[in-house]
Amino acid sequence: MSMSDARGARERLVVIGGDAAGMSAASQARRLKGPDELEIVAFERGHFTSYSACGIPYWVGGDVPGRDRLIARTPEEHRARDIDLRLRTEVTELDLDRGRVRARDLDSGAESWTSYDKLVIATGARPIRPELPGMDAPGVHGVQTLDDGQALIDTLARARAGGRAVVVGAGYIGVEMAEAMINRGFEVTVVNRGEEPMATLDPDMGRLVHKAMEGLGITMVNDAEVTSLPVGDDGRARGVATADAEFPADVVVLGIGVRPETSLARAAGLPLGEYGGLLTDRSMRVRGQENVWAGGDCVEVLDLVSGQQRHVPLGTHANKHGQIIGANVGGDYATFPGVVGTAVSKVCDLEIARTGLREKDARRAGLRFEAVTIESTSRAGYYPNASPMTVKMLAELRTGRLLGVQIVGREGAGKRVDIAAVALTAGLTVEQMTALDLGYAPPFSPVWDPVLVAARKAAARIRAAG
Amino acid sequence: MSMSDARGARERLVVIGGDAAGMSAASQARRLKGPDELEIVAFERGHFTSYSACGIPYWVGGDVPGRDRLIARTPEEHRARDIDLRLRTEVTELDLDRGRVRARDLDSGAESWTSYDKLVIATGARPIRPELPGMDAPGVHGVQTLDDGQALIDTLARARAGGRAVVVGAGYIGVEMAEAMINRGFEVTVVNRGEEPMATLDPDMGRLVHKAMEGLGITMVNDAEVTSLPVGDDGRARGVATADAEFPADVVVLGIGVRPETSLARAAGLPLGEYGGLLTDRSMRVRGQENVWAGGDCVEVLDLVSGQQRHVPLGTHANKHGQIIGANVGGDYATFPGVVGTAVSKVCDLEIARTGLREKDARRAGLRFEAVTIESTSRAGYYPNASPMTVKMLAELRTGRLLGVQIVGREGAGKRVDIAAVALTAGLTVEQMTALDLGYAPPFSPVWDPVLVAARKAAARIRAAG
Repeated sequence: MSMSDARGARERLVVIGGDAAGMSAASQARRLKGPDELEIVAFERGHFTSYSACGIPYWVGGDVPGRDRLIARTPEEHRARDIDLRLRTEVTELDLDRGRVRARDLDSGAESWTSYDKLVIATGARPIRPELPGMDAPGVHGVQTLDDGQALIDTLARARAGGRAVVVGAGYIGVEMAEAMINRGFEVTVVNRGEEPMATLDPDMGRLVHKAMEGLGITMVNDAEVTSLPVGDDGRARGVATADAEFPADVVVLGIGVRPETSLARAAGLPLGEYGGLLTDRSMRVRGQENVWAGGDCVEVLDLVSGQQRHVPLGTHANKHGQIIGANVGGDYATFPGVVGTAVSKVCDLEIARTGLREKDARRAGLRFEAVTIESTSRAGYYPNASPMTVKMLAELRTGRLLGVQIVGREGAGKRVDIAAVALTAGLTVEQMTALDLGYAPPFSPVWDPVLVAARKAAARIRAAG
Repeated sequence: MSMSDARGARERLVVIGGDAAGMSAASQARRLKGPDELEIVAFERGHFTSYSACGIPYWVGGDVPGRDRLIARTPEEHRARDIDLRLRTEVTELDLDRGRVRARDLDSGAESWTSYDKLVIATGARPIRPELPGMDAPGVHGVQTLDDGQALIDTLARARAGGRAVVVGAGYIGVEMAEAMINRGFEVTVVNRGEEPMATLDPDMGRLVHKAMEGLGITMVNDAEVTSLPVGDDGRARGVATADAEFPADVVVLGIGVRPETSLARAAGLPLGEYGGLLTDRSMRVRGQENVWAGGDCVEVLDLVSGQQRHVPLGTHANKHGQIIGANVGGDYATFPGVVGTAVSKVCDLEIARTGLREKDARRAGLRFEAVTIESTSRAGYYPNASPMTVKMLAELRTGRLLGVQIVGREGAGKRVDIAAVALTAGLTVEQMTALDLGYAPPFSPVWDPVLVAARKAAARIRAAG
């Protein structure tokens, strides 16, 4: 039986993907329109809805006591709000001309079409898995979904105490998983293709992360392309091989990053950008489409600093997109102006943050700039536990406009990047930033906040450059 | 002998006041002009230069091991940079017509005139000391200067362990001194004239501070006007009396606040504002004067949100003023646009922050507004040590412009106010703020940062108000 047979006069919203963007959109639409006006059908191919994928490293590492803590809203809670949620049901085709989607029940294999008046695509991202020998062996783990996290935890439970973990990739997921493995008592090696860890920073700042990670007892291997994942006699992964070396492992964690999951959208001819993400307008409506919206990890977003599209898979954006889509679908009005590229992470007590453009981003955007780096402290130097902090700041030549900030330090370093995130959004110059009235008291900041120190140096450099 | 006899062809800069604003101005001027071009004479009536008065509570409380840690630059260091620094020398008269100041050596009593080409007034603030019986008794302590701090520490050393401290005043200094007394092992009572502590917050937010202080074991007495400081048979303070009660004390600490120290300026006919502070232009030059600058706690500043003048005695502003004055005196160019009124403080693990306008400030400025308050957490709810945080936000009707933010919480609450401080500086609306790209990861923030949650609620309220 086709689902579309059941349609009455009310409109039907179909949502593809039951995590942050999709279910936020569904919930917000439901808040604005009751079940008598709007039917909502949501398809999710996994077992869970509305969970914090960002929290998986902390669950695996033991900071979060159980999987259910990561679930913001259960399927039952969604259904109680008259959202017809279909778990373990994968949408396999979009038929834009006839306004319908084909979905397959993953357990029974049954397929059926469901028609829509309005469609939300929130298919998320898929982890990058290079096609290497051993990639699918037991003991090799991604950490994208709750199922992934549980599988990894099961492997860790089998491993001996003091075992060896190799993390492939040194971006946010990689460094967070390195911390998780340390917290689980493993000897940790991070194998990284790039020159330094945290390629979302400039290499000079990544170098600080590298040194700090070594200080935490993590073995950091840079400039290392993985060639295979050797498998032991028992068929399980036994290490990670590069051209030069082999790193033995009881468990291998992949933290290589993700790409937009847009195969459905591509097959349907929807517009995709340079990074393979869906392209939308400011209301998060897919470009060229009247009744199709998209948000979360499957879309590209406007970078307000460079003026270019980017792919920024991050839960906080997915939630915003969902709210905005839900508002528009529900007859209200909201827009997503874009991002400035803020991200913050930590490895044990090391905090890493960035916003705006790196040097290479600025060059790619055709911008000329000055870059300065300063050392300061998180609190007044005389106050207990004042910890060192390095701030790098980029400003455009001539205009003096702030282009980006990167911060590496300890407690108090990470969220300081928000100062720069707001300044970037507002288009402030570094000269204007020197006068910012930031919170000062000895337990919170030196009398010149580190961001102000960087702004002063950047402003002086811009003036000197003329 | 008059100092002016020694003048040659080079210009002479005279600085009155050797703390943050005065010595920053002197140092910056010296950076720009060598001793062959510019002679610099600085008068300071105390024993110290360039010290952090904001750090005194932490020195008294024991977090900072010694007085010298609070001194950013010693007299010897200033002198080594060719600044003719005269300690224990009080300027007693400004003669603007003849371009000279009269100064008295406080040890010898000798007076002499010193002429200037350029003058910087950085006379700071003086603590408010109501004229009450017992106010000058031993055991009653202000905490404005390093000498004050040492005297208090001496009294505390004499007091028995587990003694009683009464703090008069519940502003920043009062609550910080309450923490210091707790850290020294005293039973602490805070006697406060206002309805709630922290009058720089709205009373509803001050109420949260009140409750939290009680939770820390501090006895909080509000709506209590001090009538006298009773003195014991030994001539030392033995308590604090109000109309209704007497609070026994082994030590009394005054944390009542400060007023601009502008008696010299007033006598010389310089322009003072509503709060008794000097009025300057954007270059920190005293209004109507060609060669006289002023900065730090003795000036009033423009509040960028209300458009009115305010007195905001704070080391971070004093340092900025000094840099700006020094740049202008030294032939460079810099301006101080004004403040948004950011302040942050803590009592033990309670963090208190505010920026922009309180409800009564907004009314006084003729602004109509909506105010919202939200509860959130410092980290993702499932992450260890996520602590509750209350954020209050004011937005102007019609325009939706952010007017102010107040935050009370634990770790991570205080410096979050910087997000709002930058938004106020940039004139963002709360609707714009809902899209801010703030740093998100579970150890740093919920997926919706508390400031975003407040902005969303405020924006909805503004829309509803039409």
